[in-house]
Amino acid sequence: MAINVVVLVGGVGGAKLAFGLAQILPPENLTIIVNTGDDFWHYGLRVCPDLDTIMYTLSGLVSKTNGWGIEGDTHAVLDAARRYGEEPWFQLGDQDIATHLLRTNAMAAGETLTEVTRRLNTALGVQHCVLPMTDVPVATIVDTVEHGELAFQTYFVRYRWQPVVKSLRFAGIENAAITPAAHTALQNADIIVIGPSNPWLSIAPILAVPGMRDLIVSRDVPRVAISPIIGGKAVKGPAAKLMVELGYEQSAQIVAEYYGDVINGFIVDTIDKTLPLPVQHTTSFEIVMNSESDRIAVAENMLQWVQSWV
Amino acid sequence: MAINVVVLVGGVGGAKLAFGLAQILPPENLTIIVNTGDDFWHYGLRVCPDLDTIMYTLSGLVSKTNGWGIEGDTHAVLDAARRYGEEPWFQLGDQDIATHLLRTNAMAAGETLTEVTRRLNTALGVQHCVLPMTDVPVATIVDTVEHGELAFQTYFVRYRWQPVVKSLRFAGIENAAITPAAHTALQNADIIVIGPSNPWLSIAPILAVPGMRDLIVSRDVPRVAISPIIGGKAVKGPAAKLMVELGYEQSAQIVAEYYGDVINGFIVDTIDKTLPLPVQHTTSFEIVMNSESDRIAVAENMLQWVQSWV
Repeated sequence: MAINVVVLVGGVGGAKLAFGLAQILPPENLTIIVNTGDDFWHYGLRVCPDLDTIMYTLSGLVSKTNGWGIEGDTHAVLDAARRYGEEPWFQLGDQDIATHLLRTNAMAAGETLTEVTRRLNTALGVQHCVLPMTDVPVATIVDTVEHGELAFQTYFVRYRWQPVVKSLRFAGIENAAITPAAHTALQNADIIVIGPSNPWLSIAPILAVPGMRDLIVSRDVPRVAISPIIGGKAVKGPAAKLMVELGYEQSAQIVAEYYGDVINGFIVDTIDKTLPLPVQHTTSFEIVMNSESDRIAVAENMLQWVQSWV
Repeated sequence: MAINVVVLVGGVGGAKLAFGLAQILPPENLTIIVNTGDDFWHYGLRVCPDLDTIMYTLSGLVSKTNGWGIEGDTHAVLDAARRYGEEPWFQLGDQDIATHLLRTNAMAAGETLTEVTRRLNTALGVQHCVLPMTDVPVATIVDTVEHGELAFQTYFVRYRWQPVVKSLRFAGIENAAITPAAHTALQNADIIVIGPSNPWLSIAPILAVPGMRDLIVSRDVPRVAISPIIGGKAVKGPAAKLMVELGYEQSAQIVAEYYGDVINGFIVDTIDKTLPLPVQHTTSFEIVMNSESDRIAVAENMLQWVQSWV
C-alpha cells in the first residue's frame, strides 16, 4: 500500500495500534505523532512517557506485563536514591533511565525533541517515524477537587488517577508550534487516524497545539478515530472515570461528539454497533487489542474500511 | 582528643587516611577537604570522583576491590546506553548514578556543592565534615605529548594514564574561592594534614584555590604530609610515572620539596627513613594502608607524633 498514514496517539492503547500499523505499512508510509503533555522532569531527567511507550513497543523492548517500560528492567538507581531519603513515586527502571539521560543530555546540547526522538528510535531499530506533537515543553495540568491543580504525573501516577477531576489545561500550549516534520506528515497524509487513546488526556493536548486542529480539519482525507470506550468502559486507564467527572455519559458516542469536525470517520467495537454516532462514516468491529495479532487485525480492518469509502 | 584536624585529600589513598582518622576523631573534630579538579560532566551528570570515593569509603559502601565506587554495584544504565550506540568509557554504576542524579538535580536547583555534599554524606550516615575544595567548577587539564590537552578523566580513565604528561593546569581556578566552611575549618585547625594523595593531580588543585595556600601557610600549627611515594614507587596510580615525566626523581624527598613551606612536617615509610628531607619535622613508620587496622594505625601514629612536637 502506498498510502501515507498519520496516527495521533498517547500511551499504551495508541502504542498497540501503532504497533499494528507498523507491521503493515513500510516505514516511509507511517508517521506516529505522540502526545507530550505527560512529559515532565524527574530528578533532573526529561521523561517522556508516551514517546517512550511508543518507542519501546515498536522496538519490542516493552514490558509485556505493563505495556510501558522495558521488559525485565531493574531498579537499582531509584533503590539507591532511597538511601538518600528520596521516596521516588514514579518508577524509573535502570534501562529506562539510560533513555532519559541520553535525551536530557542531547536536549541540553541543543537537539530538539524531534531530533533526539528520531535518533533514539533509529538506534533501537524503529524505522517508522515517531514524532513528538511539538518541540516546545507543554505540561498537562489536572485541576482536582481534593488537591487543586496537579501536574499530570502527580495526578496519574502518584495519586493513581483517583482524585476527582474538575478541568484540564495544557500549560505552555500557547507557545507550542507544529514541528516542520509533523506539518509535512499531516500535509502528505492520505489517512489521519486518532488512536484509541484518552481523548481528554492524550489526544486533546495534540489537537491543542496551535494550528494542529485546523491543519487536520483542512485535510480532505479520511480522518478516523477508534473509540477508547467499549461498552461504556475504558479499555485501560481513567478515560471513563474522567468522562463522568467532566459531566459526560460514559459512551463511545460522547467521544465521537467530542472530536466533532476533527473526524469524519469513527470506529466502535461490535458491542457498541447500535449507538447513534454523529459522524459521516462509521463502522464496528472487534477493537480490543490483547494480542499482537489483534493489533494487526485492527490496523488492517481500519485501513480496509477507510479505503472502501472511495 | 579535642584537637581539630583538617585533612586535604584526593581519591583512594586519601580516603584510606580519612577513614582511619574518622575512626579516632569525633565528627566535630575532623574536616576532610577534597579535590574537585577531577569533577566532570558525563551524560549530563555532575560526577565528583574524589568526593564520592571519600563518601563511599566513610559510609562503608565502597567497593573493597576497587577502592572507589559502590560494592556490588550493577551497570544496567550504561549497558542500556550501549543500545543507543554509546560507548561509555567511564564506568558509572547504577547505584553511583543515583548519587550523580541527586547531586546534579540539587545543584541545578541552586544548592552549592558544599551543601549537597553535606546532605548526601549525612544521609549515608557520614557525620564527619566532608567539603569540596571550592564550590566553583575547576577542571584539571593534562597536556600530553601524544594527544595535546586532555580533560582529566580522559587522561586518567579513557587513556589509563598512559600518555606522557608535559604539564598540568587547573581551568577555572582563577574564579574559584575558598568556601566559608573550608575557611573556618582551616582557621580552627590544630593540625593540617596532607593525605598520601597524588601531589600534582590531587593536592595541587586544592592548594591552587586562590588564598588556600596562603591560608594554610599562615597557620602556626603542625602541617604534615604523608608521602604517597614509598621506596620510589607510587602506592597506587600515576604519581611516580608523572614525576619522571615532569622531570623529577621518583622519591618521597621530591614530594617534600614540592610541598615546600606548605608543610612543616613530613612522614615517610620506614623504607625511606634514611632519605634527607628538607622539612623541620620528619618521621618514618609503616604507611602502607592495606587493611582497615592499617588505616587506623597510620592515623594514630601520625596524631601521636604530631602531638609529641609540642
